Amino acid sequence: MKILITGGTGFVGSRLARELLARGTLDGRRIEQLVLADQYPAPEAAADVARDPRVQVRVGKLLEQCQAFVADRFDGVFHLASAVSGECEADFELGLRSNLDSTRALLDALRAAGNVPRLVFSSSVAVFGPDAGNPMPPLVRDDTLPTPQTSYGTHKLVCEHLVADYTRKGFIDGRSARLMTVTVRPGRPNGAASSFFSGIIREPLAGQEAILPVEPSVSHPVSSPARTVQGLIAVFEATQQQMGGRSGLNLPALNVKVSEMLDALEAVAGKTTRALVKQQPDPTIERIVAGWSKGATAARAERLGLKPEAQFADIILQYIADHPGAVTESARAAAAAYQRAHSR
Amino acid sequence: MKILITGGTGFVGSRLARELLARGTLDGRRIEQLVLADQYPAPEAAADVARDPRVQVRVGKLLEQCQAFVADRFDGVFHLASAVSGECEADFELGLRSNLDSTRALLDALRAAGNVPRLVFSSSVAVFGPDAGNPMPPLVRDDTLPTPQTSYGTHKLVCEHLVADYTRKGFIDGRSARLMTVTVRPGRPNGAASSFFSGIIREPLAGQEAILPVEPSVSHPVSSPARTVQGLIAVFEATQQQMGGRSGLNLPALNVKVSEMLDALEAVAGKTTRALVKQQPDPTIERIVAGWSKGATAARAERLGLKPEAQFADIILQYIADHPGAVTESARAAAAAYQRAHSR
Repeated sequence: MKILITGGTGFVGSRLARELLARGTLDGRRIEQLVLADQYPAPEAAADVARDPRVQVRVGKLLEQCQAFVADRFDGVFHLASAVSGECEADFELGLRSNLDSTRALLDALRAAGNVPRLVFSSSVAVFGPDAGNPMPPLVRDDTLPTPQTSYGTHKLVCEHLVADYTRKGFIDGRSARLMTVTVRPGRPNGAASSFFSGIIREPLAGQEAILPVEPSVSHPVSSPARTVQGLIAVFEATQQQMGGRSGLNLPALNVKVSEMLDALEAVAGKTTRALVKQQPDPTIERIVAGWSKGATAARAERLGLKPEAQFADIILQYIADHPGAVTESARAAAAAYQRAHSR
Repeated sequence: MKILITGGTGFVGSRLARELLARGTLDGRRIEQLVLADQYPAPEAAADVARDPRVQVRVGKLLEQCQAFVADRFDGVFHLASAVSGECEADFELGLRSNLDSTRALLDALRAAGNVPRLVFSSSVAVFGPDAGNPMPPLVRDDTLPTPQTSYGTHKLVCEHLVADYTRKGFIDGRSARLMTVTVRPGRPNGAASSFFSGIIREPLAGQEAILPVEPSVSHPVSSPARTVQGLIAVFEATQQQMGGRSGLNLPALNVKVSEMLDALEAVAGKTTRALVKQQPDPTIERIVAGWSKGATAARAERLGLKPEAQFADIILQYIADHPGAVTESARAAAAAYQRAHSR
């Protein structure tokens, strides 16, 4: 089968690609071709993926690539490409173009292809927000009323509904999965207002200072990269009946306070590592984060057999195992000791 | 002030225009100019409106008219133009163009104008529908989770969220009001699957047979044209605080069974009039109607002082008073007798 991943050279995209290549099959069919469409070429960290003979990387804006997808007639699509929340707040038109127009163009291309491809759309927990008439519950559920308070969340929600309608009409077999905040992301901070949720772990592990722009009492639904990729694949492989409706479903979340994240960092990597995190409130980020969910439940995803990580320490250990070169020797040693003490 | 009504020569649009012209003011300011943008010229029934010196009718597709609105710098906009539900199901691209692309073009033009105009978007109770994971409650509320089951409802919901986001960003001062099924509409049946809700009253009153394509036990939230126009104006004149949130609000509904509509028809216009309604099930319409709300509540609209009609007979009397030429003499006489008996 022929698979397309938009945003395919990005962090989640290339990790998903690596997992699909390792499995070799998807939904019981052999993967013959995997196209990674992205505005950027594959970074060094994804060189192994790009080198696989089944992989074709196509570099260019998604909006300009969609027309070609008609002839590709992909069997399956993971639509991950997206401008992130901070970018969309800073540049309204960029957000509309990257997140709304591009998705519309993709859906129209898949419709024109005529082979009813399966599509997983990566929506986001950012569809939820506090509206005056509709305060958010402490934990957002699959069926909590989404009233997004960012352009990013608005476009994600709008695209969920377009995916549902193209599916209802039989043009695609689409499903939307709301990603939780994926952490720990490797590399540099990105434009997402949620970037610090990775930064406060990644930078100290590398021996660098990190700024915590919010109160440690802030709670947030997060997911590891591995569980997120697992969730995307499970949603692809589910039948529409198993999906339990065409509306977007929440992927599993570990609902965690920043203070608990930092406690886990200290437990895994030591006091001196944690001490590299400096609290320095940023009113802009605090305002954005105040509009975010404090946590999420994921009943429909659980029925697909999906679970969040049990504890945040596991997410830190996953990062260290995946990116040993980005972690100081002392932090690696502390983590190894932590693992010996906690596995028997 | 300068007002734009899209769909301005249509039934609700021209009725809204007539009401605004009669009031002379909106939100405390004098109406100097009223532009009616519509793909059709004003029909004979709206000749009085089109003749008013304050009125300018602009005929053409909305998508092609939007660019000119930038220079107009309207103070207020009622965005009513829309392809109806049946049309959107029959022609997917027409629906996307008329209901999604046109609204986007309108919002972008109003944003480009730069004067933060106030906008009322006419959404619809069709945003609600039964999704496998989210069955509809017996009465849909302002905060019921919308999972639309038609392209029409999808586009209305998508546009609600775009209006909310353009408003949040300060580009417009927008608000979305979900119209209930407006009945009794004059004239000919239109492409809406809900068209029969008017037909089963209008045709018998004109001495003609009407087809009832669903069971008489079907219940539905309806509103008279007068209350609908009143609702649109109240929503325009409300402050954002009074609106109680940026998400769409339900306009008041009279929740009525088809059998109750027919009983009211008999009470007002006599047995022979009611006898002109022939039940003839239409599976396509039955399927669509099965996905619609059985009724609605409108808590936020009530806080704006809005109320539905008290009973369906009042809606029939309103139609007869507004369109005496479209009603047989015997039905008019029966209605006059009914009114004498019921007013004291």
